[in-house]
Amino acid sequence: MMLTSSSSFSPDVLACQTVLKQDYREAMSRLGAAVNVITTDGPAGRAGFTASAVCSVTDEPPTLLVCLNRGASVYQAFERNRVLCVNVLAAGQDGLSNLFGGKTPMAERFAAAAWSVGLSGSPMLDEALVSFDCRVRDASLVGTHDVLYCEVIAIRNGAAESGLVYFRRAYHRLG
Amino acid sequence: MMLTSSSSFSPDVLACQTVLKQDYREAMSRLGAAVNVITTDGPAGRAGFTASAVCSVTDEPPTLLVCLNRGASVYQAFERNRVLCVNVLAAGQDGLSNLFGGKTPMAERFAAAAWSVGLSGSPMLDEALVSFDCRVRDASLVGTHDVLYCEVIAIRNGAAESGLVYFRRAYHRLG
Repeated sequence: MMLTSSSSFSPDVLACQTVLKQDYREAMSRLGAAVNVITTDGPAGRAGFTASAVCSVTDEPPTLLVCLNRGASVYQAFERNRVLCVNVLAAGQDGLSNLFGGKTPMAERFAAAAWSVGLSGSPMLDEALVSFDCRVRDASLVGTHDVLYCEVIAIRNGAAESGLVYFRRAYHRLG
Repeated sequence: MMLTSSSSFSPDVLACQTVLKQDYREAMSRLGAAVNVITTDGPAGRAGFTASAVCSVTDEPPTLLVCLNRGASVYQAFERNRVLCVNVLAAGQDGLSNLFGGKTPMAERFAAAAWSVGLSGSPMLDEALVSFDCRVRDASLVGTHDVLYCEVIAIRNGAAESGLVYFRRAYHRLG
């Protein structure tokens, strides 16, 4: 089993200049990223949200990370269920991205697509480019967010060929 | 100052099925990602490597994360210098990505492009789409990797309009 612990990097105390939040957000819009719908189900109920802050950490054991705002309405569901599925969206699924990124009630969000149940119990999007079904193994608190370290326990590859990427505040088809 | 600590997610001990490393890698190739050259300089010398495992964590204070293999040849330099610059590559910089992702000696890698010195002392790529100059504030050990939490202390936007994304083991132009 993997344990997350502090490494040999330690906080330093040097003062530094301040980068404005809006300048940071504008610059970050230039870092293109795949669009994912992250889902969960379990004792705390079904929930899902759109996220681009997902990346692979290590392949032994297969582990990815997801950044989750502790103030998000879905936070409690993910914290209590401790399972999730990263559904990587395919080209053309802009609508689903907007739906899971907005204020729509959960039942309506899930009614907009077809789902299967993953090994973890989380909803797997049938038309995803690929889905990573995971157990949350550990997490780090970083400012306003939790970084969730997720062990991948099942994978389902979809039929789609092209991906969906968000870049400069617009969707783009990939491949 | 930000501190990273364990959140309310704790490891669980349920057994699970094993996802093969090669199946995980194949599936991860479908998660499109921006291509970045991550650089550092300081007491341990200048170093740089290509990485796609970069994402934004929070905007207060502006913080991103970078995943770094503890077995990488550049690991010691980043660990000791505790500063880095994320240079997001523009379309057409495939060659620079390959150079910093291979076995080429550091001097040759850096000779292939023009650089400025960032506020942190790290090399900033003059032709980057955007560069995030950072101090490493903390890190988590996750399996074979360190996840570095980096506070952004300066940003430089480049002139390029189009990004570079890696998807299905090939480079793609974005935008």
